[in-house]
Amino acid sequence: MARYSKEERRKLLKEALAENPFFTDEELSERFIVSVSTIRLDRGELGIPEVRERTRAVAQEAYSTLKSLDDQELIGELMELVIGERACSKLVVDESMVLTKARVARGHYLFAQANSLAIALVDAKMALTGSVELKFIRPVQLGEVVLAKGVVLKRKLNKYWVEIRLSVGAEDVLCGNWVLFAIEDPAGIRGEME
Amino acid sequence: MARYSKEERRKLLKEALAENPFFTDEELSERFIVSVSTIRLDRGELGIPEVRERTRAVAQEAYSTLKSLDDQELIGELMELVIGERACSKLVVDESMVLTKARVARGHYLFAQANSLAIALVDAKMALTGSVELKFIRPVQLGEVVLAKGVVLKRKLNKYWVEIRLSVGAEDVLCGNWVLFAIEDPAGIRGEME
Repeated sequence: MARYSKEERRKLLKEALAENPFFTDEELSERFIVSVSTIRLDRGELGIPEVRERTRAVAQEAYSTLKSLDDQELIGELMELVIGERACSKLVVDESMVLTKARVARGHYLFAQANSLAIALVDAKMALTGSVELKFIRPVQLGEVVLAKGVVLKRKLNKYWVEIRLSVGAEDVLCGNWVLFAIEDPAGIRGEME
Repeated sequence: MARYSKEERRKLLKEALAENPFFTDEELSERFIVSVSTIRLDRGELGIPEVRERTRAVAQEAYSTLKSLDDQELIGELMELVIGERACSKLVVDESMVLTKARVARGHYLFAQANSLAIALVDAKMALTGSVELKFIRPVQLGEVVLAKGVVLKRKLNKYWVEIRLSVGAEDVLCGNWVLFAIEDPAGIRGEME
């Protein structure tokens, strides 16, 4: 027997997707203990598009927010960006990113995903990384999907403290603290990092 | 008047190039206060090839020493490698590495040069980065040549402490400390970084 009435379920479904638009139909079907086709029907009734389309819409909004980087300069796929607050990106580890011998992602790809997300969080035309302390927690295998989450911990004038955490599923794979500098005039960047 | 007799100068020239094969004829001419053509003549007499050829020979030797990385996995051009001791590489910052707006090298390219040099220093079939503390000292402009120098500070079983310093001319641009792990069996890498 289903746990919720149809009306209840649709209300909760709408709320769940408003909070996290990345839930798949499969995940929702487990959550509400109904079949995947019931979830599809619910979405149809509620006028909510499928997850791929929802992700695209969210990503477009996130990309349009980018200020300190160009679209193609962010490593990974941007999923959320509230400049000065928090951001999220996704990177699928492909053949080009792994070490030949070990088949695990090379450190600088994970660094690039984290570093470019940290830069995206800075509210300025440009940002430079000042210092970084980071820890690689476990290697990332070919084909794994790395989710990066960034949070601005503190800001003082043009200086930002950002925490970045990379995970695969429920496991953290990298975490680190970045100090960055907002630069309003790209022509005068020399010496501004002191 | 020249500072040294021809015999003295040739002896010193040979010693200087044995220690640092990357001296150009121009640098040597300043060092010995003679003309560039005198230096060329000296080299001819001593059977020492020109700097480009010497660099190539040294690089080939360095690449043949690589163990924990494949040739093309090292970012930059390897110039020296004594595994477990010290290494040196060179990276010319080209158009593909700079930020569109600021025309300075993106952080992850410098990280990649440093990180891959640190990995090359580990005496094992494979190495993984455990943690890194690094500081970007000044931005690197398009066209600048970045020299990376790495030194193994300490080693304990499969754990390495490596210092990496990147410079452009006489100026440091990045410095950092790496902790790395040597992995002899690439199949068993999960959980070895604890």
